[in-house]
Amino acid sequence: MAARRLIPLLDRVLIERVVAAVKTPGGVLLPESALPKVNEGVVLAVGPGRRNQAGDLIPVGVKEGDKVLLPEYGGSLIKLDQKEIFLYRDEEILGILKD
Amino acid sequence: MAARRLIPLLDRVLIERVVAAVKTPGGVLLPESALPKVNEGVVLAVGPGRRNQAGDLIPVGVKEGDKVLLPEYGGSLIKLDQKEIFLYRDEEILGILKD
Amino acid sequence: MAARRLIPLLDRVLIERVVAAVKTPGGVLLPESALPKVNEGVVLAVGPGRRNQAGDLIPVGVKEGDKVLLPEYGGSLIKLDQKEIFLYRDEEILGILKD
Amino acid sequence: MAARRLIPLLDRVLIERVVAAVKTPGGVLLPESALPKVNEGVVLAVGPGRRNQAGDLIPVGVKEGDKVLLPEYGGSLIKLDQKEIFLYRDEEILGILKD
Amino acid sequence: MAARRLIPLLDRVLIERVVAAVKTPGGVLLPESALPKVNEGVVLAVGPGRRNQAGDLIPVGVKEGDKVLLPEYGGSLIKLDQKEIFLYRDEEILGILKD
Amino acid sequence: MAARRLIPLLDRVLIERVVAAVKTPGGVLLPESALPKVNEGVVLAVGPGRRNQAGDLIPVGVKEGDKVLLPEYGGSLIKLDQKEIFLYRDEEILGILKD
Amino acid sequence: MAARRLIPLLDRVLIERVVAAVKTPGGVLLPESALPKVNEGVVLAVGPGRRNQAGDLIPVGVKEGDKVLLPEYGGSLIKLDQKEIFLYRDEEILGILKD
Repeated sequence: MAARRLIPLLDRVLIERVVAAVKTPGGVLLPESALPKVNEGVVLAVGPGRRNQAGDLIPVGVKEGDKVLLPEYGGSLIKLDQKEIFLYRDEEILGILKD
Repeated sequence: MAARRLIPLLDRVLIERVVAAVKTPGGVLLPESALPKVNEGVVLAVGPGRRNQAGDLIPVGVKEGDKVLLPEYGGSLIKLDQKEIFLYRDEEILGILKD
Repeated sequence: MAARRLIPLLDRVLIERVVAAVKTPGGVLLPESALPKVNEGVVLAVGPGRRNQAGDLIPVGVKEGDKVLLPEYGGSLIKLDQKEIFLYRDEEILGILKD
Repeated sequence: MAARRLIPLLDRVLIERVVAAVKTPGGVLLPESALPKVNEGVVLAVGPGRRNQAGDLIPVGVKEGDKVLLPEYGGSLIKLDQKEIFLYRDEEILGILKD
Repeated sequence: MAARRLIPLLDRVLIERVVAAVKTPGGVLLPESALPKVNEGVVLAVGPGRRNQAGDLIPVGVKEGDKVLLPEYGGSLIKLDQKEIFLYRDEEILGILKD
Repeated sequence: MAARRLIPLLDRVLIERVVAAVKTPGGVLLPESALPKVNEGVVLAVGPGRRNQAGDLIPVGVKEGDKVLLPEYGGSLIKLDQKEIFLYRDEEILGILKD
Repeated sequence: MAARRLIPLLDRVLIERVVAAVKTPGGVLLPESALPKVNEGVVLAVGPGRRNQAGDLIPVGVKEGDKVLLPEYGGSLIKLDQKEIFLYRDEEILGILKD
């Protein structure tokens, strides 16, 4: 069975959070409580944006594939076909990470 | 007696929630407490939208027949001629599900 | 003495609530506590609407004679010449019921 | 000494509340606690209205002499030269009563 | 030393409150606790007004010398060179009193 | 070392508060608890103003050198190179004092 | 491994806070509790700004390299590749410091 796609509405952004590495560079397995918290994610899909009071569509500030910095709190956990993904409002995303 | 129709006002969206399957793929009947919670629904009808301050009508982002992802909380339960349906504001609907 | 009329102001809608049938289809009289709650009403009169910030008058979404679905809470009870009627803001009315 | 006049500012409406009849139709005098509460009044004066964000003056919805239905709560009691009158915002007045 | 003048900013209105007469018409001196509360004042100076979102200056609704009705609460007490005066926002002043 | 300058942003106004005289006119030194509170200040620098929703820059209502009346509460204490100065929003300043 | 860059979104401003000198001018090492609190920082990067209701982009009031005065509270601590930096909304930054 093929996975279903979620097309976000308004200024919502669908994000897969980056999971912390579970091994140290030396190969030692870390217990979950020792994993560093990572507030980063990759954009999976973006909504069309929200209209302002003048009627113009304001597109969201990120695009599919962007690596983004996320706030400590916020976003909604969505379980879609066993996969855990997150929905943020465009407003909540702090910035884009570039290598 | 024919069922009555409800035409939503403003940016309201009438939704029938998807009910979780009550049997496992193997045919075992599940008790209600074991049923997974499903935050999905099908759009039955949409309102005309809401006017912004410039006087333009902002249509809702979904249409009849769309399969949508719903938030954990929100929406109003409506009992219409014995049937349980839900009214959401367009703003509350998280996204459209595509197979 | 003729009854007085109330002309609602702004986006207010004057509504007479539908009273639940006090007998079963078989003719048995029901006690008040057993009466089903009916969140329906008929529009008696509507206000002219409210002006938006651009100065345009936004008419209300219902008209005299419409059968409407009302929210669980809200509206103001008005006693006018012994009759109990309700005032709702246009915004509060959920939808129009069609047979 | 002639009574002073109060010219309301903005969208304020000066109202004299209708006092309940203190005798029954048969002429029996009623104690104050038995008087029915009357949420009606007569408009004595109206302000020029309030400007919206576009700079247009939005006149109030009632005029001098109108008999109006008032909300259960709201309005400010004003004592002007021994007389008790009330100031309401145009927004608070529920509707106009017509015989 | 000449008294200093205060020029109010934005939509502020400088007001000197009317003090209740401390003698009865018959000449009896009243103690302070028996003085009637007087919510009236005289406008000493007005600010230029506030700009709305369209950029237009909205002048205040009163002018120097106007006798005004003040709300029960509100306004800020200002002590300027030993004199007690009050600053109100234009919005707070209830109406203009005319003889 | 020369003192640094602070250029306020948006509609902020940099103010040096007037300090109460510590001697009576007769030359008696007053203890700090006996000093009268003075809600006055001198404008040291002003920000460029804030843009309204139409995109126009709304300049602040005071200028460098103005003597202003300040509210009882509000403003932020800033310690800049050992000197205590205050930042107010233009909106908070009550009025301009003229001799 | 090269450090990653964070490009702030909307009206966010990336700031590195100025750290208080840990030695006195005479060379004495100060314990952390004796360090003066410094509410200053240097702008590392700025977002593109926020759109107002008319659809115009309002650029932020500071630029890369500006030395700024920060409020006592506010801003979000971001840990990016072991470095502690801060994100402020443009609105929160008090002013620009000039030597």
